[in-house]
Amino acid sequence: MVQLLARLPGLGPRSARKAALALIKRREELLVPLASALTEAINKIVVCQECGNVDTTSPCSICSNPKRDRSMIVVVEEVGDLWALERAGVVTALYHVLGGHLSPLDGIGPDRLNIKALVERAGSGDVNEVLLALNATVEGQSTAHYLTEQLSGAGVEVSRLAQGVPIGGELDYLDEGTLAAAIRSRKRL
Amino acid sequence: MVQLLARLPGLGPRSARKAALALIKRREELLVPLASALTEAINKIVVCQECGNVDTTSPCSICSNPKRDRSMIVVVEEVGDLWALERAGVVTALYHVLGGHLSPLDGIGPDRLNIKALVERAGSGDVNEVLLALNATVEGQSTAHYLTEQLSGAGVEVSRLAQGVPIGGELDYLDEGTLAAAIRSRKRL
Repeated sequence: MVQLLARLPGLGPRSARKAALALIKRREELLVPLASALTEAINKIVVCQECGNVDTTSPCSICSNPKRDRSMIVVVEEVGDLWALERAGVVTALYHVLGGHLSPLDGIGPDRLNIKALVERAGSGDVNEVLLALNATVEGQSTAHYLTEQLSGAGVEVSRLAQGVPIGGELDYLDEGTLAAAIRSRKRL
Repeated sequence: MVQLLARLPGLGPRSARKAALALIKRREELLVPLASALTEAINKIVVCQECGNVDTTSPCSICSNPKRDRSMIVVVEEVGDLWALERAGVVTALYHVLGGHLSPLDGIGPDRLNIKALVERAGSGDVNEVLLALNATVEGQSTAHYLTEQLSGAGVEVSRLAQGVPIGGELDYLDEGTLAAAIRSRKRL
């Protein structure tokens, strides 16, 4: 158990031992419920065949929600990014989870990501806009570049997130690239 | 000396005592040069009458540089913000330092900031655009709002920095406001 716990992100060998002891000590309130939650996850959690989200149903609760705007697809790298956007409550449209970003050095090419299904969804006729909500990292942006090319024949508008000063950001603490992007994309008032 | 050092930002009473001892111990290599640097600052450093920057001349080396684009004024809150933009090398135009932001609770109204001179400069005829490069904080943005009103009669374009995902930013670590701004101002590709 310690060895498996240590393989969780954020837990080292020492904190894994501590976690294991806490589980054993608090058998009824922690160990038993966690064991049954993990078993439930094995049986119930599935990957949505539409968008790649994880949920207890496929299509997931977002894809099957009739209130969602079906004319737009928000493309994210990971399910964690989808959760971040849902927490913020800023997306009313559907998602598409790539499952990572292109990374030739790690052997992750286009065929390893959920790209083919995205191009098919974008060309289905319902969709007007594909918003590439990828990280502002080198890998995220080169993936966005590749996707833009792949989507060029789908007859949809392709957009990306705005880059600039984060809310609450003070100029003195920002890096050069962000300051340059913020000036380049300045907005008329 | 300890009491005065303790009033510097970033130094508490304890670190001020340490700094004082270090100065006394290293008399020739630290105390004497620092004393003369401070004296030199008293005699030489002036506030630029044009833009509010600090330099050894007025107009400052930026205002008097013939290579600078005189059709645009970049408005910043503090000289530290001007330095940040100069470090990034992303501004080829002139600056205007407000000397802070509006803060009614602290009794800082428009008359306490370098606003009148800005409106005069903007209306002088040479200027086409005023870029409000203020912090993305509540105070910075309400100051930007006030300045936009004040500049409405000057016949110049008023713009602000783009807000969005900072370069290198990952969605999972960004706050709701930034995600909302990044989606709202998304760019067509």
